[in-house]
Amino acid sequence: MIQSVAFLGLGAMGYRMAAHLPKHFDTVYVWNRTATKAEQHATEYGTQAASLEQAIQADIIFSCLPTSADVEALVQGLELKAGSIWVDCTSGVPDAARRLEETLADQGVIFLDAPVSGQTIGAENGTLTVMIGGSAAGFEQALPAIQAFGKLIKHVGESGAGFAVKAVNNMLMAVNLCAVAEGFMTLKAHGVSLNEALECINASSGKSNVTETVMPQRIMNRSFPLTFALPLLAKDTGIAVDLVRDAKLSAPLLSLTQNLIQAANLQAEENSDFSAAIKMYESWSKITIE
Amino acid sequence: MIQSVAFLGLGAMGYRMAAHLPKHFDTVYVWNRTATKAEQHATEYGTQAASLEQAIQADIIFSCLPTSADVEALVQGLELKAGSIWVDCTSGVPDAARRLEETLADQGVIFLDAPVSGQTIGAENGTLTVMIGGSAAGFEQALPAIQAFGKLIKHVGESGAGFAVKAVNNMLMAVNLCAVAEGFMTLKAHGVSLNEALECINASSGKSNVTETVMPQRIMNRSFPLTFALPLLAKDTGIAVDLVRDAKLSAPLLSLTQNLIQAANLQAEENSDFSAAIKMYESWSKITIE
Amino acid sequence: MIQSVAFLGLGAMGYRMAAHLPKHFDTVYVWNRTATKAEQHATEYGTQAASLEQAIQADIIFSCLPTSADVEALVQGLELKAGSIWVDCTSGVPDAARRLEETLADQGVIFLDAPVSGQTIGAENGTLTVMIGGSAAGFEQALPAIQAFGKLIKHVGESGAGFAVKAVNNMLMAVNLCAVAEGFMTLKAHGVSLNEALECINASSGKSNVTETVMPQRIMNRSFPLTFALPLLAKDTGIAVDLVRDAKLSAPLLSLTQNLIQAANLQAEENSDFSAAIKMYESWSKITIE
Amino acid sequence: MIQSVAFLGLGAMGYRMAAHLPKHFDTVYVWNRTATKAEQHATEYGTQAASLEQAIQADIIFSCLPTSADVEALVQGLELKAGSIWVDCTSGVPDAARRLEETLADQGVIFLDAPVSGQTIGAENGTLTVMIGGSAAGFEQALPAIQAFGKLIKHVGESGAGFAVKAVNNMLMAVNLCAVAEGFMTLKAHGVSLNEALECINASSGKSNVTETVMPQRIMNRSFPLTFALPLLAKDTGIAVDLVRDAKLSAPLLSLTQNLIQAANLQAEENSDFSAAIKMYESWSKITIE
Repeated sequence: MIQSVAFLGLGAMGYRMAAHLPKHFDTVYVWNRTATKAEQHATEYGTQAASLEQAIQADIIFSCLPTSADVEALVQGLELKAGSIWVDCTSGVPDAARRLEETLADQGVIFLDAPVSGQTIGAENGTLTVMIGGSAAGFEQALPAIQAFGKLIKHVGESGAGFAVKAVNNMLMAVNLCAVAEGFMTLKAHGVSLNEALECINASSGKSNVTETVMPQRIMNRSFPLTFALPLLAKDTGIAVDLVRDAKLSAPLLSLTQNLIQAANLQAEENSDFSAAIKMYESWSKITIE
Repeated sequence: MIQSVAFLGLGAMGYRMAAHLPKHFDTVYVWNRTATKAEQHATEYGTQAASLEQAIQADIIFSCLPTSADVEALVQGLELKAGSIWVDCTSGVPDAARRLEETLADQGVIFLDAPVSGQTIGAENGTLTVMIGGSAAGFEQALPAIQAFGKLIKHVGESGAGFAVKAVNNMLMAVNLCAVAEGFMTLKAHGVSLNEALECINASSGKSNVTETVMPQRIMNRSFPLTFALPLLAKDTGIAVDLVRDAKLSAPLLSLTQNLIQAANLQAEENSDFSAAIKMYESWSKITIE
Repeated sequence: MIQSVAFLGLGAMGYRMAAHLPKHFDTVYVWNRTATKAEQHATEYGTQAASLEQAIQADIIFSCLPTSADVEALVQGLELKAGSIWVDCTSGVPDAARRLEETLADQGVIFLDAPVSGQTIGAENGTLTVMIGGSAAGFEQALPAIQAFGKLIKHVGESGAGFAVKAVNNMLMAVNLCAVAEGFMTLKAHGVSLNEALECINASSGKSNVTETVMPQRIMNRSFPLTFALPLLAKDTGIAVDLVRDAKLSAPLLSLTQNLIQAANLQAEENSDFSAAIKMYESWSKITIE
Repeated sequence: MIQSVAFLGLGAMGYRMAAHLPKHFDTVYVWNRTATKAEQHATEYGTQAASLEQAIQADIIFSCLPTSADVEALVQGLELKAGSIWVDCTSGVPDAARRLEETLADQGVIFLDAPVSGQTIGAENGTLTVMIGGSAAGFEQALPAIQAFGKLIKHVGESGAGFAVKAVNNMLMAVNLCAVAEGFMTLKAHGVSLNEALECINASSGKSNVTETVMPQRIMNRSFPLTFALPLLAKDTGIAVDLVRDAKLSAPLLSLTQNLIQAANLQAEENSDFSAAIKMYESWSKITIE
């Protein structure tokens, strides 16, 4: 029986995810590097702003940080409670998951890599997709807590498998982002009406999440709202190509995509949303995708 | 007022598309190079098997052939009826559309490029997407006939625009086909359960028509049913990169995809469905995507 | 026996190539769209500035224009002398060679595609490489005239073969240009001394014409002298990928190179030398290759 | 003053490199995992077959092993002599060079990464190119020993720089290998005579070490002699793309090349020479490059 849960890292995602926990658990610790955010969360949702030492005494510890390096730095030197489960919702690196699983096992703690998908809106509505790697037993134990913010929750394999699926998912999104930019730029150069073309493609075999949501909500209306930063997408595509390299496979399209996203990232203004990657193509062609 | 319609080319798509016309029009001619197919259609759906000369006396003439070259060969030497409209549902070449528009204009006939999307099931249900290039007036006149088999019907621009949108749509599908093959091969090499991963991605930002329908219905179940032949997808990706070349743009991801699909096509068994393109990757990695 | 020769097109290459002809032939006509250039050539080298109609009465007619389209436009409407040979030194399109061969054959004239390599310095010294497509008999007849400016002169195949070899040659140069930019940018990011690295590579298996001459003479010294314009290299890489498409082959690396060169070209300042293509990479990475 | 030198690893390269040392130094230890090879070397060249412990007492210790992992495994646990210099001629990983430099510094030993280029023939003739990373003082001290087998010997930067230059060099060779395969396959499809085309390109701007030596000596004559194994080239291209990733740059052409070489490697017969990578293209196109 889960008595207490903690949430470490109250960024755009974590803040909203942690907000669901008090509905299901009496004791919910929240911790953030900038403590005022945790206090604000406590006031708003009835959670308890805690010190890191206190928070990690919970039965289930969630973390949601920018990178695996942040999680590994945080874990270092902590004395954890045997029997607890650490559920890391960071979009992290599979190798780091395996290192963390091993490190935490020494203290009797199970580590699960449990990245989420669904953006801030999914976090707010508690309808995130959660892809989980690690021990099946740990997965079963942590499931009731994860259900607080997740809708589709899947155990996809051993330690690192969750991070791997997330990296490939984001890579597929990146592939579509580049391909759609190239395709629509070409259509516009030939005088095609992009709105009509998009409607047709969204009713056809070429459709994707990018054509269905990213194009109308972020690109065609020229809003590029910053909800998922371009450098993070560049990081995730990098994780995906590292998986290819580790497995000694050949994945030309994924590698090219990683390079294109990285080139876009190198040229982008600071604080660019991932969707602004298409501006690289626009700067090449002087064609605006709208 | 449309008095008569004709349908030329009763392949897997055309046969089913033409079947909807008798519900709306009294006179429906059907023609096919192999005449027995037209006779069978007449028997089955109450259409009239006609000679080519007779069929082209209709007010609206549909055609649905393998390539634009076939349509251009068919049109050559025909004496058409001034005032009629030729609606070409082939997945064709934009340049050919412009040539045909010009040629037919000499006889007082409007040419529309009107490729369809939705596969045989959409043709059967009369729910195809139709993307149309050419004169707006011709579009308005032909619309009632197109509605017999189309659900989403869009005028996307001048002559050739319909073919261009179709080529880009199929290219986007091809991009996803290659990317999904590369991504899932990589996940499997890392021990991830593909069924669970697919379910997660289909609830996440990386989803596409390929992950939602092609993967479960054709690839993961190893069925590869031949409904859209791989050489035709190779042809369509070629049309898309020709559009890029004509416009003097740079589209690295689309070009790479065209080369990968072509490589897969060169290696494929005869009569391969487009989804079998992934077997090229499987032959590289000795990993089966299932 | 060759009695007279003509040279049409006195650009940077043609001007220097035509200068060698008077050493071997008594009658040398030169023609240029801007006639003053022809007069200047006559004064400088003892050639005869001629009208187009006069020039094409020569036994051997050389042409050296920017593109095949220019040559086809020039040829249109000309009345040629049966028995003469037209030797086109343009870096042209294989399909155009075949069309020109056919058109000229009607007038009893042999057309040879005979592009050259070796830059202005090779033209000046009469040491150009000449790769020739077309009839073997025509090649034998024209050889004495071609030897005036060529050192290595090869009959590489039927009509169009010369243009094809030139396009592939320039593509290979473009491939090295991009690869060297990427590689040296990477080395510099890791603190490697580029001068020493270049010296090592030029004594190793990675060397190419780009590392041996383009890097030291154009890039590392930041001179980028305009002797071969970037848009012309973009054109040539386009001819090469069209050859791939026509043959229904798969050439991923050549296609990517064409797209990268085209992207560089779209972003380049006007009147950029081909070597300035590397500035695209520099704008991405903020690393200067020097 | 160097009194003694040692050579660890008597493979195809090392065996020949070590053979030059007795001409310049009285005491030359050789060591190999399979000791008989060292004894054979001693007999043949007047070196001393030694135990590992004895060999590492030399003033200058050369190593030449398949990978950096082999060198790191070898070094582990060794007690080295302070003041000596370890010159590692492996085609290794820059990160490993930095780790080894640090590890050996603890024992007062300087580590230089000093990969070589020039193949077995260069090793035999003592005309190798040596690209060296690490301390400038160490470089100066070791130089007289390196000159025994090296002709062009360059200090290219800090620790790891030598390995980086070697990786980029081999990557450039790989780029040319793929590009030449694609280009010549295309030429042959268009009926061009490859021997003549190669001769032209070797006198033109598209030439490279691959067109000048690999094509005539290994590919066109279908000999593919195993002197540098394809998996090692795949390894080296991997090191190069890792350098790109580490520096957070974008290098689309190098990445694609790495994937193509890796695909070729996955499909190749065992014990394939690097030049056999072109057989992947031949299996796609059914065109033999000869």
